[in-house]
Amino acid sequence: MSAQLSSRIPVAVLGATGMVGQRFIELLQGHPWFELVALAASDQHGGRPYAEATRWRLPNSEMPAEVAKLPVLPCRPDALPDVKIAFSALPGEIAGEIELAFAQAGVAVFSNAKNYRMTPDVPLLIPEVNSDHIAAIVQQRKQRGWSGCIVTNANCCATPLVMALKPLQLKFGVEKVLVSTMQSISGAGYPGVSAYDIVDNVIPYIGGEEEKLEIETRKMLGEWEEGRGFVYAPMVVSAHCNRVPTREGHLECVSVSLGRDVSPEEVIEAWESYVPEPQQLGLPSAPEQALLYRYEQDRPQTLRDRDAGKGMTTTLGRLRPCPLLGYKFVVLAHNTIRGAAGGSVLNAELCVSKGLVS
Amino acid sequence: MSAQLSSRIPVAVLGATGMVGQRFIELLQGHPWFELVALAASDQHGGRPYAEATRWRLPNSEMPAEVAKLPVLPCRPDALPDVKIAFSALPGEIAGEIELAFAQAGVAVFSNAKNYRMTPDVPLLIPEVNSDHIAAIVQQRKQRGWSGCIVTNANCCATPLVMALKPLQLKFGVEKVLVSTMQSISGAGYPGVSAYDIVDNVIPYIGGEEEKLEIETRKMLGEWEEGRGFVYAPMVVSAHCNRVPTREGHLECVSVSLGRDVSPEEVIEAWESYVPEPQQLGLPSAPEQALLYRYEQDRPQTLRDRDAGKGMTTTLGRLRPCPLLGYKFVVLAHNTIRGAAGGSVLNAELCVSKGLVS
Amino acid sequence: MSAQLSSRIPVAVLGATGMVGQRFIELLQGHPWFELVALAASDQHGGRPYAEATRWRLPNSEMPAEVAKLPVLPCRPDALPDVKIAFSALPGEIAGEIELAFAQAGVAVFSNAKNYRMTPDVPLLIPEVNSDHIAAIVQQRKQRGWSGCIVTNANCCATPLVMALKPLQLKFGVEKVLVSTMQSISGAGYPGVSAYDIVDNVIPYIGGEEEKLEIETRKMLGEWEEGRGFVYAPMVVSAHCNRVPTREGHLECVSVSLGRDVSPEEVIEAWESYVPEPQQLGLPSAPEQALLYRYEQDRPQTLRDRDAGKGMTTTLGRLRPCPLLGYKFVVLAHNTIRGAAGGSVLNAELCVSKGLVS
Amino acid sequence: MSAQLSSRIPVAVLGATGMVGQRFIELLQGHPWFELVALAASDQHGGRPYAEATRWRLPNSEMPAEVAKLPVLPCRPDALPDVKIAFSALPGEIAGEIELAFAQAGVAVFSNAKNYRMTPDVPLLIPEVNSDHIAAIVQQRKQRGWSGCIVTNANCCATPLVMALKPLQLKFGVEKVLVSTMQSISGAGYPGVSAYDIVDNVIPYIGGEEEKLEIETRKMLGEWEEGRGFVYAPMVVSAHCNRVPTREGHLECVSVSLGRDVSPEEVIEAWESYVPEPQQLGLPSAPEQALLYRYEQDRPQTLRDRDAGKGMTTTLGRLRPCPLLGYKFVVLAHNTIRGAAGGSVLNAELCVSKGLVS
Repeated sequence: MSAQLSSRIPVAVLGATGMVGQRFIELLQGHPWFELVALAASDQHGGRPYAEATRWRLPNSEMPAEVAKLPVLPCRPDALPDVKIAFSALPGEIAGEIELAFAQAGVAVFSNAKNYRMTPDVPLLIPEVNSDHIAAIVQQRKQRGWSGCIVTNANCCATPLVMALKPLQLKFGVEKVLVSTMQSISGAGYPGVSAYDIVDNVIPYIGGEEEKLEIETRKMLGEWEEGRGFVYAPMVVSAHCNRVPTREGHLECVSVSLGRDVSPEEVIEAWESYVPEPQQLGLPSAPEQALLYRYEQDRPQTLRDRDAGKGMTTTLGRLRPCPLLGYKFVVLAHNTIRGAAGGSVLNAELCVSKGLVS
Repeated sequence: MSAQLSSRIPVAVLGATGMVGQRFIELLQGHPWFELVALAASDQHGGRPYAEATRWRLPNSEMPAEVAKLPVLPCRPDALPDVKIAFSALPGEIAGEIELAFAQAGVAVFSNAKNYRMTPDVPLLIPEVNSDHIAAIVQQRKQRGWSGCIVTNANCCATPLVMALKPLQLKFGVEKVLVSTMQSISGAGYPGVSAYDIVDNVIPYIGGEEEKLEIETRKMLGEWEEGRGFVYAPMVVSAHCNRVPTREGHLECVSVSLGRDVSPEEVIEAWESYVPEPQQLGLPSAPEQALLYRYEQDRPQTLRDRDAGKGMTTTLGRLRPCPLLGYKFVVLAHNTIRGAAGGSVLNAELCVSKGLVS
Repeated sequence: MSAQLSSRIPVAVLGATGMVGQRFIELLQGHPWFELVALAASDQHGGRPYAEATRWRLPNSEMPAEVAKLPVLPCRPDALPDVKIAFSALPGEIAGEIELAFAQAGVAVFSNAKNYRMTPDVPLLIPEVNSDHIAAIVQQRKQRGWSGCIVTNANCCATPLVMALKPLQLKFGVEKVLVSTMQSISGAGYPGVSAYDIVDNVIPYIGGEEEKLEIETRKMLGEWEEGRGFVYAPMVVSAHCNRVPTREGHLECVSVSLGRDVSPEEVIEAWESYVPEPQQLGLPSAPEQALLYRYEQDRPQTLRDRDAGKGMTTTLGRLRPCPLLGYKFVVLAHNTIRGAAGGSVLNAELCVSKGLVS
Repeated sequence: MSAQLSSRIPVAVLGATGMVGQRFIELLQGHPWFELVALAASDQHGGRPYAEATRWRLPNSEMPAEVAKLPVLPCRPDALPDVKIAFSALPGEIAGEIELAFAQAGVAVFSNAKNYRMTPDVPLLIPEVNSDHIAAIVQQRKQRGWSGCIVTNANCCATPLVMALKPLQLKFGVEKVLVSTMQSISGAGYPGVSAYDIVDNVIPYIGGEEEKLEIETRKMLGEWEEGRGFVYAPMVVSAHCNRVPTREGHLECVSVSLGRDVSPEEVIEAWESYVPEPQQLGLPSAPEQALLYRYEQDRPQTLRDRDAGKGMTTTLGRLRPCPLLGYKFVVLAHNTIRGAAGGSVLNAELCVSKGLVS
């Protein structure tokens, strides 16, 4: 470990002043493989110290003292010369060009932005779900002549859904999925949702979210075929997305039609016995349990279960028959950790452990 | 009207101290047909004035001065001798026997309790949906030898669903329904949900609610056949029920499979052209519009739409294709008005206007 | 009245797209004296219809149909030629110049902005409190050579405080005041407070608010002396201002030292017997009761009392001895009605009724 | 330490099923000095396992597995024979007799109940504030012939106030205090406050709270004089207590009149240099910093600062002049940890370290 520490990989956070940017900073503190050496942001902070450029928004931590002093640099590769990995929390409006520039400059970009998620040679990666999709990186580099790469993570509400579906797909097949989400305010970033819009309210609409949830799920549960690219999973997914007045955690009600008749015990067993690659490899950010099934009749709950596994465990519960599709259940994950910054860090760890980034 | 006023029907509220009981009192103020003459409650208040027996819980009104002085009587027919109609807000644990006693004593009971909703000769009535189900009252009286009767209203989350489905059923047929609810805290009564359980939280479970929503929908959308009784609608309904931190209003995401191919315009037209019996009859509690479709992409919202039509209008929105079932949409109704006390008062008005109660 | 209606005064709303601007529009619907003929806003809407320029934010009303079609004009007097009264909901950054230009052009400006509140010849007016301060308008016009004028209303948390103190000052004198506020999110405008900052939180700081509350109170409770100007009340006021997660209504805990020993009964009697000028004159926006004292031990409450008198009544309660200053009590008023738009409309009504605007 | 571990003191929690009881259990997990060996509760659980008798209410922890199996015993000393220390989270209605019985039976009772707080020979103890008050225990035992004892902790809103005042009293003297609280829902226990009462609301009344806050502060900041007993601090304290919709943490706005003129720097220095006995002794539950002053203009905030020092640090901020009393500031502490269970555990640690309990 000390050897590792002495040679940690220098990383940067792009879009470091926003909420997901701050989550990246929080998660990178004391990381055994990665050393946060640079911060960049979209707007012109002119190299001012991070502590002057922004305020810390995360309620349960403080701005790390050594980060407070770091200058906020422009989002250009030449401004961040020594960086090997860039974690991108950039907004979609500007992420496209910037991430491309970094990848061209040889940096491995792990992005939380939506821009390249559906790009044919870019993996939409959740290591517990589709770690084999990293094969696309090889083709991406070959085809584009890059030494860097772009790897994306999923929309924050797609993450818990595919985490829940993957073990079922593997064992039984998944044919139809109907999901209704109750998403926290932090999913909209900062300042994000006006308090006047959401206190004592539910907003049954989040722009573009349902479309992303429906298509990203199928890409992630699909296959990477050499020479052919991504083949989307042939399932039908229908989504209802809602904003509710909770701080963190996206809770989802799912009805699912499986490929064959199975007992409830088999479904739960599929989840409980699922030990995906990050847990097998012992990746630093992998929680002990990727999936946790709770047997209480009223769990998971947003408040009580979002911090499971330091926000990296996906919690399941309430499996019961669905008169329409076969089974229904509830799934929850922390949206700014598991569904955003933590997911990207885990993606980077997988790529490092596989020798794709060094 | 002045004639009516001089001969208003004397009514009582059973379970007058709870939240739905207070809604009944609120809605009966100045009612043109009904005169609130008596209050009763389950526990022993020994005839104390209402103002001493309870506190007013509704935030936007005050305890009416003339109600404050009324004694809180025991829930026995002999204690309320002149009453023709009893509105019951009793809890399920005691509603069964008490409502029976009143019906036997010749009182028309309009109940918000769950006890008799599924009883074969008791109508589960929403006047905009199944006003013909009042035919069951005739049989109920004949069979049981009563001059009174029991009429129930639906569970507070079943009401908006069937309101939305009825015009579709009439025009196109409805085959499959998947509904996910976001229900307000007032749905649990008072004191109901502990603030510590729900602030910054979603609870994806309400005891017995999903079962009620699935079966009540089919009874209400079914048919009353003379000599045969209720024939449930042959549709499949699957429900996910959630408690969210809002005060009033139940919002529901619905996916639906119709009996034939129709355009979105036809679906909306089915809702907008629907003028059910209460509106035709001009019943006092019927809102101008039974159903209101909103074209904004983010409506209905719990806070903004729950009070439409003084809490009696059901608001719809976001009709769009569902990749799985055909169409999806959002529906909202006020749970303690439209879905509870207001629904019962409207039921009574229908029965009076049809000559079944006088 | 029909005569009045036929000759209603043409008025405009400046800053019509924000939350207070919308409150102005809401309150001016059907106003017997004022006819809303023009809307203006700070940013360039190029004459687009109001319905296209903004969304309606108020939860319990809809954008009025005739307002939806009005063009959103630039905030220049020449763009609103026929307007006699302008209600200003402009932000402080731009209100100064614009309001000045309108006053110079002969328009009576009733402003909710902070810019001129402390100006020596501008009244800071609450008709129930210091209606005699309108005398400053005469001097303002003479001195500045205007035919228009500028009249300001108070900060939204100063309003309930001075409403509570005025009757005490009149009868007993007020020497020391310590006030701690719990202010709603709508006080920050729209989008205002980020939901991520305030859900499950209290923020004990609102920029500039404590200073405003301390000094405005003394101006409003002071005297206008001909030739000398405003003489501030010689009382000491100390304020703590807090933001809490409520939608509307500013609740304030007050400790007060009166000019002489009085009984609690006398204090309450001072409030209950207070019939200020708007109620005497029967101004259209004056609620029946300017002040309402509630005897329940836990009132006023933000949710339950903010809408008293359609949001124009100030509610008091919990009068009890203060070991330090003599008495303590709680006071509440609706911040965007009584403390903002409604206050300005009432100011205009007072000036019209006194012949200062026509 | 391993020696200590092998001989940890056996302790029990009385009132183990409520919210403060659960906090006790949570805080006693892995405690180096205390071993939780028994649970008791007021109502008859007949020895059923804890997991069956109650549900875990705390959102950020799980019921410890070894505690889940413990039987819930009756609150009688003979039912808990081996216990040396009892932590009492009993409600006031029954705490009186039960705590007395345990103390008589030789058990050291550390109570969170209000019953004995004002008793002349019972210390109302906050180790950072009045650790010398434990001298009362000696007299309590002598006078009453007990080998056990009763030690109480303060009301949850008195704790942050006296924590803030003590260093000021020591250095400058404190003469007058005016405090206005914003208290979280968890302060009312479980189920405590109905969500319907508090969502979107502030309730400016908590029964008995203002009286407790005013008198407990003076006892804690007073002196224990041998032979004379407690001499209350001669300061004047006036309190306004409010319930706001936050989960945990009591925030308080304080105006204070000190014994002499001091600069703001001196006040902050008094707080920052204060190293009370628990920190000097290194008691296990003592946070690194008893008091933390934050220099940001909008801190402390309920959400962001309540968990400082694992909920045991008291956070201060916003020191500024008060026109009335001299200085004003804001103080915050976690009400169910620092202000309840954590405070009692720290009290027990102090008594053990002083040789009063073994």
